[in-house]
Amino acid sequence: MTPHVPHADPQTGAAVKAADRAHVFHSWSAQGLIDPLAVAGAEGAYFWDYDGNRYLDFTSGLVYTNIGYQHPKVVAAIQEQAGRLATFAPAFAIEARSEAARLIAGRTPGDLDKIFFTNGGAEAVEHAIRMARLHTGRPKVLSAYRSYHGGTATAINITGDPRRWASDSGTAGVVHFWGPFLYRSPFYSATEEEECARALAHLEDTIAFEGPGTIAAIILETVPGTAGIMTPPPGYLAGVREICDRHGIVFVLDEVMAGFGRTGRWFAAEHHGVVPDLMTFAKGVNSGYVPLGGVAISGRIAATFDKRPYPGGLTYSGHPLACAAAVATIQVMEDEKVVENAAALGETVIGPALRELAERHPSVGEVRGTGMFWALDLVRDRETREPLVPYNATGEANAPMAAFAAACKAGGLWPFVNMNRTHVVPACNITEAEAKEGLAALDAALAVADEHTV
Amino acid sequence: MTPHVPHADPQTGAAVKAADRAHVFHSWSAQGLIDPLAVAGAEGAYFWDYDGNRYLDFTSGLVYTNIGYQHPKVVAAIQEQAGRLATFAPAFAIEARSEAARLIAGRTPGDLDKIFFTNGGAEAVEHAIRMARLHTGRPKVLSAYRSYHGGTATAINITGDPRRWASDSGTAGVVHFWGPFLYRSPFYSATEEEECARALAHLEDTIAFEGPGTIAAIILETVPGTAGIMTPPPGYLAGVREICDRHGIVFVLDEVMAGFGRTGRWFAAEHHGVVPDLMTFAKGVNSGYVPLGGVAISGRIAATFDKRPYPGGLTYSGHPLACAAAVATIQVMEDEKVVENAAALGETVIGPALRELAERHPSVGEVRGTGMFWALDLVRDRETREPLVPYNATGEANAPMAAFAAACKAGGLWPFVNMNRTHVVPACNITEAEAKEGLAALDAALAVADEHTV
Ligand SMILES: Cc1ncc(COP(=O)(O)O)c(C=O)c1O
Ligand SMILES: Cc1ncc(COP(=O)(O)O)c(C=O)c1O
Repeated sequence: MTPHVPHADPQTGAAVKAADRAHVFHSWSAQGLIDPLAVAGAEGAYFWDYDGNRYLDFTSGLVYTNIGYQHPKVVAAIQEQAGRLATFAPAFAIEARSEAARLIAGRTPGDLDKIFFTNGGAEAVEHAIRMARLHTGRPKVLSAYRSYHGGTATAINITGDPRRWASDSGTAGVVHFWGPFLYRSPFYSATEEEECARALAHLEDTIAFEGPGTIAAIILETVPGTAGIMTPPPGYLAGVREICDRHGIVFVLDEVMAGFGRTGRWFAAEHHGVVPDLMTFAKGVNSGYVPLGGVAISGRIAATFDKRPYPGGLTYSGHPLACAAAVATIQVMEDEKVVENAAALGETVIGPALRELAERHPSVGEVRGTGMFWALDLVRDRETREPLVPYNATGEANAPMAAFAAACKAGGLWPFVNMNRTHVVPACNITEAEAKEGLAALDAALAVADEHTV
Repeated sequence: MTPHVPHADPQTGAAVKAADRAHVFHSWSAQGLIDPLAVAGAEGAYFWDYDGNRYLDFTSGLVYTNIGYQHPKVVAAIQEQAGRLATFAPAFAIEARSEAARLIAGRTPGDLDKIFFTNGGAEAVEHAIRMARLHTGRPKVLSAYRSYHGGTATAINITGDPRRWASDSGTAGVVHFWGPFLYRSPFYSATEEEECARALAHLEDTIAFEGPGTIAAIILETVPGTAGIMTPPPGYLAGVREICDRHGIVFVLDEVMAGFGRTGRWFAAEHHGVVPDLMTFAKGVNSGYVPLGGVAISGRIAATFDKRPYPGGLTYSGHPLACAAAVATIQVMEDEKVVENAAALGETVIGPALRELAERHPSVGEVRGTGMFWALDLVRDRETREPLVPYNATGEANAPMAAFAAACKAGGLWPFVNMNRTHVVPACNITEAEAKEGLAALDAALAVADEHTV
């Protein structure tokens, strides 16, 4: 895919920006302090503004355009479905809806064969938790401190990052525990094996003190994404699966970010040989070309709602346009071997290059990841592992990361930045040449981060 | 718009249905007891199945296709935007996003000039309530028993219909009160004036006993929709506005169903001369051709998040494809006078015809509504007003309504049925001839309902 040369039209850009500032209320932001870039277009792994600046996107939006921007086959499928049947209510059987469910169920692990469609990830988490509570008749949910699960009430309360704090009142029944993370081990472990065993013991203890009979579900991102891309040590997820089975707890894996090729497999759970009872998805399912998410449901949980109505829904469940985009996206991913590309490029190009950068840049504390899902944990001090900026830093305290991000942009790279980390999460069908272009820009920007090390 | 003659293709229909039953988990349903109709296509006010049956849609899907199915201009706009920029992350200024926000803000009442976009109605309610809680620093929300606000945790707890019951544990801070409804008055009123005064007194009393300083928001559907289309008596909403002002409570109007032309105005609040602090919308904003919802925010509440970040968001906030569909839909509604059509046809054709039906059919207890938003309250006994079926009836107890619905379908009309009511909620751009065709089918089906009166 050759990127367009952007047509610079600063006047239109100024008008778009002015209307935005007058009327668009932006998420997660102080409205008076933001200055959103006006974007004119995008194609493949690139986007461009109205002033002639083009950026290589190492964020995939919010880690969702797994096939890049404007894939012609998916665009054509959306156009075709729009002309045929853009929308229809959820109580009916609709070709695109049936076909999307069939294709997704054909790729999910184990017996996750029934698909409940939502508009996005947060709603998927809401419904998964409701299913678990009704299936078990128990109230509590256990989730990890280093996690993000969405912005609606249940999803944000399950979340383990600072975005939760303002919404913490008014709900009950969510308990946070610590997942495995060797580089910043909550358990003082020295090896992956030790971290795995201690994290499982911590979970067992937490369950014992909360009361196993009170716990409906344990929800985990298969690989925590926004929180830092920490692939769990071998055996951890299998251990959680065993604990859930022993206590009759529903095991929910959130693959909203990790699913649909991101880790180099269709679903990250495959790396671990684990089948959850419920699996949430969104983002990569259709690369976000039309809002879509959902829950893949095991036979056992679906059976709970065979004679008894499932008390949940939404107007756009199984939206035909969104489902048609999913059908085309899955087809493209198969035909163009997008998942295989993510796996191969991750292993042969991005992984080795990032590790090589780590050797040369003292600000890189750890390189973690697989496929097209990588994090650089940036530090002030490699010995103490002190983060380059404190947890949840803003303003002056966050200046080193802000300088790093600015250096990336100056080099034509749009970086994903969260706390003291940068994530390398480009489209899963990026080429080797594009990856190398981005890695070179990263190299230059890390020199700026290095200036803030001890 | 002339409806297509459907091409009957029962084999495709059977395959669509089979894949649906194997893989699609449907909302609000016992999965083993449903038999979803496979729909092959739709145009304007009609849809058809794979067996050659065509139906006039008096439901507008779930009351959302306000411009009917497959409007060619909106379809073209979706196709155009898909080819230009289907999706882009929310932190950027994007032409379709800016323009949709500008057009919506230009139609919302008062100073509701900032638009926070979501994927649908439930998320809009979630974010409105969060804004109210953070703006006031208070925990509680008051909402009406006869209401529906969505399927996510906060939205379902605010809801006042039986779909809430299964999700009632685990949250706190929602208090339900009774809104005005003269035909089944909770206050033993004889007139609209009395109902209005007593409903306001009841709300005042509830606030006094809950503690005014504990209440963040009062949320009401401007006209309760799914719960029965009860237009509030003159003065009621102005009274609630005054009460909110006196106690520093945020007034939220939910116009997810009532907004965008449904009542014969752009927003139902206009009928009542009232401006809320926050207004939720979805459905009609783009006739659901692409999932979209949002919150229109007053200047005062937006200012709360000027220097302080708003702690909420979602991946697809301000989705370009959804916003482009909104821009085109609003343009079509202006150009083709869709809102005016809803008002005129409601007043001159549908309203009079329904009242005439009520005279002839003893099963019709009351006719309520305006624009393209009408309810027939069906009764066993006009004197006692005993509903045709009990509240939340299923199975045998619901047989009279099931027989009525079946009679509508046999007459080529797809009816909206909820408890003991049928709602007449066709597309807002339906023609007089189409309306009359549907009313004739309704006439025949009401004869079946009449058989169940005393
Ligand atoms: C793991 C995970 N779950 C859920 C969500 C929420 O998805 P959405 O923003 O579509 O509601 C996200 C979003 O980033 C996510 O990364
Ligand atoms: C008044 C009202 N609010 C909110 C909602 C929820 O909207 P959604 O189904 O898009 O989540 C509905 C849906 O019918 C509604 O009628």
